[in-house]
Amino acid sequence: MIEPLGKEDARALLGAQRYGRLGCCHDGEPYVLPINYFYNGEDLYMHSLAGLKIRAMRENPQICLQVDEVTDDYNWRSVIAFGEYEEITEPEERERMMASLLQRFPHLTPVESRMSQGEDEIVVFRLRIKRITGVSEHWQ
Amino acid sequence: MIEPLGKEDARALLGAQRYGRLGCCHDGEPYVLPINYFYNGEDLYMHSLAGLKIRAMRENPQICLQVDEVTDDYNWRSVIAFGEYEEITEPEERERMMASLLQRFPHLTPVESRMSQGEDEIVVFRLRIKRITGVSEHWQ
Repeated sequence: MIEPLGKEDARALLGAQRYGRLGCCHDGEPYVLPINYFYNGEDLYMHSLAGLKIRAMRENPQICLQVDEVTDDYNWRSVIAFGEYEEITEPEERERMMASLLQRFPHLTPVESRMSQGEDEIVVFRLRIKRITGVSEHWQ
Repeated sequence: MIEPLGKEDARALLGAQRYGRLGCCHDGEPYVLPINYFYNGEDLYMHSLAGLKIRAMRENPQICLQVDEVTDDYNWRSVIAFGEYEEITEPEERERMMASLLQRFPHLTPVESRMSQGEDEIVVFRLRIKRITGVSEHWQ
């Protein structure tokens, strides 16, 4: 009843959802947090206030994003995209990615205002996907 | 609008929810997966088929469980319990913990049957909590 999810289904799930759980490791200790993202069909884009988790990912860029769709305890699908943390610093790309994030999350105005004031505490980054695994469980 | 969650609220959230995301690190790479748990007011109890993640946690017992309650993108609470992976091998304790898990998840019969047949591929473990952190975001 638990079976691997095919690549296409896994990518479709990444495209359909809008938040997941970002995982990173700091000194061998895992850290997991909920985060909004968008998926451009290739990589995953996120943004965050600078802080502990950004420092952790700069130090160890191996990260993952887990995304799931849980109907109930026995009917769910879960995908993990593993890859590398990469900061988007090039101004044009950063603006384009923020626009895409804001398009999906139109209420992020406070962040947008801070961005447009040029404050640097908002970090835009991608998870450059190296591999994707997925599983699903279905009972009827 | 984003603020730390007090210890009591954090523990209350752990007690109220029944599944979270387990994080572990294997060779510096994070792994995150959805998992059912129960919280006895002190530690977190889970079970899993033996496999990659069990091997990873045996190797590096620093793990975490992230639990959240998301109303929408701007109203959510999230808790992370950090601690150590400990397998429950003592038969009586293992039976008691499985009973508690089954009480909360009465449909886990197939697992229970496998357990009662003495098959050893089901691992019961606790996350012995060392520290808990939590944040909440509220907009009106």
